[in-house]
Amino acid sequence: MHSVDELSSAAIERVMSGAAVHDNALSQPTARDALAHKTLILLFYEPSTRTYASFYAAGLRLGMRVLPVPVHNSSVLKGESLEDTVRTLQEMGDVIVLRHPDIGSSLRAQRVCRVPVINAGDGAGEHPTQALLDLFTIRQLGSVKTVTFFGDLKHSRVVRSLSKLLAKQGFICLMVPAHADLGLPDAPAHEWREVDTFTDVLYVTRPQVERGKIAVKYQVTKKMLERCKPTLRIFHALPHTDEIHAELEEDPRAAWWLQVANGVQVRANVLCHVLQARSRL
Amino acid sequence: MHSVDELSSAAIERVMSGAAVHDNALSQPTARDALAHKTLILLFYEPSTRTYASFYAAGLRLGMRVLPVPVHNSSVLKGESLEDTVRTLQEMGDVIVLRHPDIGSSLRAQRVCRVPVINAGDGAGEHPTQALLDLFTIRQLGSVKTVTFFGDLKHSRVVRSLSKLLAKQGFICLMVPAHADLGLPDAPAHEWREVDTFTDVLYVTRPQVERGKIAVKYQVTKKMLERCKPTLRIFHALPHTDEIHAELEEDPRAAWWLQVANGVQVRANVLCHVLQARSRL
Amino acid sequence: MHSVDELSSAAIERVMSGAAVHDNALSQPTARDALAHKTLILLFYEPSTRTYASFYAAGLRLGMRVLPVPVHNSSVLKGESLEDTVRTLQEMGDVIVLRHPDIGSSLRAQRVCRVPVINAGDGAGEHPTQALLDLFTIRQLGSVKTVTFFGDLKHSRVVRSLSKLLAKQGFICLMVPAHADLGLPDAPAHEWREVDTFTDVLYVTRPQVERGKIAVKYQVTKKMLERCKPTLRIFHALPHTDEIHAELEEDPRAAWWLQVANGVQVRANVLCHVLQARSRL
Repeated sequence: MHSVDELSSAAIERVMSGAAVHDNALSQPTARDALAHKTLILLFYEPSTRTYASFYAAGLRLGMRVLPVPVHNSSVLKGESLEDTVRTLQEMGDVIVLRHPDIGSSLRAQRVCRVPVINAGDGAGEHPTQALLDLFTIRQLGSVKTVTFFGDLKHSRVVRSLSKLLAKQGFICLMVPAHADLGLPDAPAHEWREVDTFTDVLYVTRPQVERGKIAVKYQVTKKMLERCKPTLRIFHALPHTDEIHAELEEDPRAAWWLQVANGVQVRANVLCHVLQARSRL
Repeated sequence: MHSVDELSSAAIERVMSGAAVHDNALSQPTARDALAHKTLILLFYEPSTRTYASFYAAGLRLGMRVLPVPVHNSSVLKGESLEDTVRTLQEMGDVIVLRHPDIGSSLRAQRVCRVPVINAGDGAGEHPTQALLDLFTIRQLGSVKTVTFFGDLKHSRVVRSLSKLLAKQGFICLMVPAHADLGLPDAPAHEWREVDTFTDVLYVTRPQVERGKIAVKYQVTKKMLERCKPTLRIFHALPHTDEIHAELEEDPRAAWWLQVANGVQVRANVLCHVLQARSRL
Repeated sequence: MHSVDELSSAAIERVMSGAAVHDNALSQPTARDALAHKTLILLFYEPSTRTYASFYAAGLRLGMRVLPVPVHNSSVLKGESLEDTVRTLQEMGDVIVLRHPDIGSSLRAQRVCRVPVINAGDGAGEHPTQALLDLFTIRQLGSVKTVTFFGDLKHSRVVRSLSKLLAKQGFICLMVPAHADLGLPDAPAHEWREVDTFTDVLYVTRPQVERGKIAVKYQVTKKMLERCKPTLRIFHALPHTDEIHAELEEDPRAAWWLQVANGVQVRANVLCHVLQARSRL
């Protein structure tokens, strides 16, 4: 699973209702045993707590064996290509979760690899499992129609993946870049004041200092939200720093801990989806 | 579990006799299954072999799932607070073992976290599980009355935790700082020559170079022990370097391998204690 | 297991036919349970993907508990000796797989350790499990008589281990150093042109830049192989860089993915061999 583009409506529903799917599957001893003998490989070339730990936890929760490959302990140091590393690791497990700084790295890896590769972030490219858990959380809220993305949209893989996924699902996605240079090239930019009164979810992104860009400063405050619906919920993929004012940390509109709480479940669903899909080949 | 201060006599006895407690518990299939489905999270912000590996081994020995969070792979790099990291990780496991360089970090983490946090060393603060395994080892020896701490006492979390725990249990604790500046502010300092003849356990600490202090040199030699009881045992939390002379490495009075050998068992007892306490809530 | 020197013919056969040995063993519930309660400790002081991950996978595949000790998280930082680290870790597991930069480190570790230590590379010393999986792969090919080693032979632990193992097994081993300074002191050096027509396996080694040596440049090309048998197979312990020309990457004569694919199986056999040997003590 490399991009949300490849997800059919049926696949999305399978991952969303995955709780039921894999609970049913797991209630049958044979299905549980099938997963219990599969090995999940974690291959992270970039730092991550949330995605790394939630895939690890998802694998453990499914009873899988988990094999984390330490990058500081890896042949990368000896100059091995991603392709050769993945070709090697496919002999040691049944599914590879890959985070890598290069756009398209997940697809590159899949091309040389017979076991499924799951994209856990490919640079400024995509982050489909984050998008799926965000969709899960948005649907859980009940009556969301409009999702507004705010901040550095240009360098955000979450915005790229989630806005495509939401569009597929009939949500209205609006883009409010924090600065003229931070918009998406293929989407119209709005001002916050144009959309604040009817936005249901405000999705705030992090200034992408890691990608070698100079961070533009911006901050969501209570004042900025004063014209919003009382039912507004604020999303963030975490970790956040100054782009969310400390006064919103404990605000009931904050939805980020809900996102985190759904992460393990949705990633377990993704693992089941990917491994069941494979077992039918 | 953050400090030995919070441990009642009953709790101490449960951890000490834990072998029996958790062996009984584990002989009942339901109890064993309850542990087998729980996930132990290891969150170490500071280097450690012994404590890290013995908690890891304790979890595995109990049949738990173990999720180590690599700090070099963590959102710390993105500037996330300890509180937010712990809030995130509580969604991924049932108990968090935390080592962190700041005094009080374990309590800070617990305040925002619904799953139990176990302090595996909070800077110069406390190290309650080391103290518990040392108490276990001291009680195992049989007839210890007087424990003398020697070396850098001021910066040692082990001295802080263990001396409080031993005092609760009726042992006599004596402090022999290796230098006038290295004593505990709230305990009288003795000279080794005042206490060497009746000391049962000599607990030697490491010069705390890690805490940014200039290490004062001191060394325990055979000569220093010549007036001691033949039954004297020397403790050390390891690793040691020059503060123990090489001539004592294989000395029968050395007790440090006994301490290590008890570490996994006592930490397994602590995990059972903490998780059973929780399951009754 | 420290050197191929210590392996009897019977031990070699047990590891080679290990598939059968441990499949039989595992089909008996008691044997499977015996392994399931044993803990495999991975102690790697040097970077490695292949060896690390394949031992990890082998342990998981056998149903063992796996405890990886992160070196960056280790008391090495506090100046602890290898001996003390291993003495500590033997309390936490049943077998230690050790990679360490010093020749003889595996034997040094074993001397102070009651659980078996498996050498996963001791500097320029030996790499017996790599040699065993290479022997397994060579035997799998069927009709190999002559194995020619090419490249930096002097600093290669794989050449050292494998040539001794092959000699024991009646294979002809020939040495073609890429440069006059890169030969083995105790083996005659050949020119490639003297041996190319009858060589069955060409084993190419990596220039050993890690060991602080200046790498001599050399490269195997299609042209170099034009007089070879059509059945020639090229081996490499991976990762490779320029010593194999890119034009050979997808060549049917390349055998390195076969080597990798056999790695997990042979290392599982080694673990079974070592643990069964022990359980009879």
